[in-house]
Amino acid sequence: VEKVTKVILDVLGGDTAPNAQLMGAIKALKQEPEMNLVLVGNKQVIDAFFDKHAEFKSRIEVVHTTTNIEMNEQPTQAIRNKPDSAIVMGLELVRDRKDCVGFISAGNTGALMTGAIMKIGRIAGVSRPALCPTFPTVRERKVLVLDVGANMDCKPINLVHFALMADVYLKQKGLENPRIGLLNLGTEEEKGNELTKETFQLLKKMPINFAGHVEARETFSGDYDAIITDGFAGNVLLKSMEGCGKLYTTELKKAMKGFPAVIGKLILAPRLLKMKKRLHEDAAGGAILLGIKKPVTKIHGNASPTTVSNALVLSHRTGDMNLEEKIGQALKDISAD
Amino acid sequence: VEKVTKVILDVLGGDTAPNAQLMGAIKALKQEPEMNLVLVGNKQVIDAFFDKHAEFKSRIEVVHTTTNIEMNEQPTQAIRNKPDSAIVMGLELVRDRKDCVGFISAGNTGALMTGAIMKIGRIAGVSRPALCPTFPTVRERKVLVLDVGANMDCKPINLVHFALMADVYLKQKGLENPRIGLLNLGTEEEKGNELTKETFQLLKKMPINFAGHVEARETFSGDYDAIITDGFAGNVLLKSMEGCGKLYTTELKKAMKGFPAVIGKLILAPRLLKMKKRLHEDAAGGAILLGIKKPVTKIHGNASPTTVSNALVLSHRTGDMNLEEKIGQALKDISAD
Repeated sequence: VEKVTKVILDVLGGDTAPNAQLMGAIKALKQEPEMNLVLVGNKQVIDAFFDKHAEFKSRIEVVHTTTNIEMNEQPTQAIRNKPDSAIVMGLELVRDRKDCVGFISAGNTGALMTGAIMKIGRIAGVSRPALCPTFPTVRERKVLVLDVGANMDCKPINLVHFALMADVYLKQKGLENPRIGLLNLGTEEEKGNELTKETFQLLKKMPINFAGHVEARETFSGDYDAIITDGFAGNVLLKSMEGCGKLYTTELKKAMKGFPAVIGKLILAPRLLKMKKRLHEDAAGGAILLGIKKPVTKIHGNASPTTVSNALVLSHRTGDMNLEEKIGQALKDISAD
Repeated sequence: VEKVTKVILDVLGGDTAPNAQLMGAIKALKQEPEMNLVLVGNKQVIDAFFDKHAEFKSRIEVVHTTTNIEMNEQPTQAIRNKPDSAIVMGLELVRDRKDCVGFISAGNTGALMTGAIMKIGRIAGVSRPALCPTFPTVRERKVLVLDVGANMDCKPINLVHFALMADVYLKQKGLENPRIGLLNLGTEEEKGNELTKETFQLLKKMPINFAGHVEARETFSGDYDAIITDGFAGNVLLKSMEGCGKLYTTELKKAMKGFPAVIGKLILAPRLLKMKKRLHEDAAGGAILLGIKKPVTKIHGNASPTTVSNALVLSHRTGDMNLEEKIGQALKDISAD
């Protein structure tokens, strides 16, 4: 029997909590036999739920709290003032317990990121951690984009660290020689702003498979495994994808209005819904915060049970990756050059 | 009879030239009786085309050249070294001729923008001109986004100028009190990078209807008439919309594969094609370069005849807007405060 490790889940944060979190937990426990869970939230609610799913009771542990950091709270203050919040308790648990490999929350993004740095700390040598969601592409393979909002006003060295972290992480996920691109407004070497021009020159010298500049329209082409950018542009990329998805869905609904009801409702609607779901759950599923000593994952505020489950399974699998040592080593290697 | 003014069209630049340009010209001439055209391109080709459309012959003027600035040419050098290129000739014509109100090209974007500044010049007081496409939204109204790539490494004052130019332009287009937002990664005042934080404070004091920060996902909501950003983030927004459109179309095609052929081919495909076309032609139609003494419009390299026609009609209508005086005055007013 493989050793059983635990993932910690915030059951309070997010618009769809606690239901999506609890249903996602069951889904993940079914899928991943070597994973157990630590659920941080209202013990009464969690216990009542698992009374109905008694077969999983032995695989969960409950840490009680009803204090949540709300979406509009200032991150640093909230972390300081709410030591009994699910986010702070989850971060301290994952830091202190050897049997816990990751922490997942759908709560206040800023508080989760700031808290992760304050409570768990950066991997030695990492100038800034990066928030890294995975997007679908038109092909089978997916693409990691970093950073999407943890870091404003980046310097070239921050982006170099993002690239090295992505390289380590994707190799640990099983990709050989991941192709890493730099987000820019054209593919020519001389195009871009001061940040991308300087970063381009640095990335050329790094021991990674650097694929040069990438335009935002190529994000979903499947030609890249990771795309490096600063948090502002990355956030624009992430959120314009959401906005564009909404625009397409609205237009589709309009286009469907003229359809015979049987075609629209019975044939078309389920397929389109499925498509939207796939795009949404891939894109808005777990975004891992790379560069922290133990992996912390942010899931979308309106996460579905599938998103929760996907994030739990992924987080559990990063437990074997030893990212702290591997990322630390990669950064040491380049500073020794 | 209203006075007839002319728009100049580059018939050489772009992947779909000269056909899309010539068919678009006919379409626009039909739609806009008070507009005539100056066509810059291969006289033999243009004349042969208009021999078949003889009723429009009296409304066009041909300026012959076969020199095109290619997509990969360095802008400043190309403008200097190719005085007989369609872009340089078009820019000089619109600068010199009182009867010409605008110039449109699907050619090298950098050359068109650099050439416009070099040959026509900025409006007094404008620190940087901005490239401004119009996007569709989920509602009837559209949204102007500026800048989408003319300006890297902007300063707050550049973005303030963009906002004032957008305000003047949209009012001239007939919008009352246009709502102008600043692209950012959250709506809270304290969020953002150094550029957006400083710009936010300046825009609050401007005589415009400033709607605060806008997240990229709200671009297509129809809640804003203009969204202000620097050229790097704006380019990411523009191009991720293209990429996302492609992703949706690909997924839709996959979803349609299981359909009975009659439904897919006869009912569904034409509707989806129509939708894609609308989104594409709205979004990738004319992007006006605001801040230049006479309006220059960039159209997409693979522009359709409809895009060409829309851009011609719009450019013709800007002829009555007197943007040089109005934008100059708006900038003078704020520097006098």
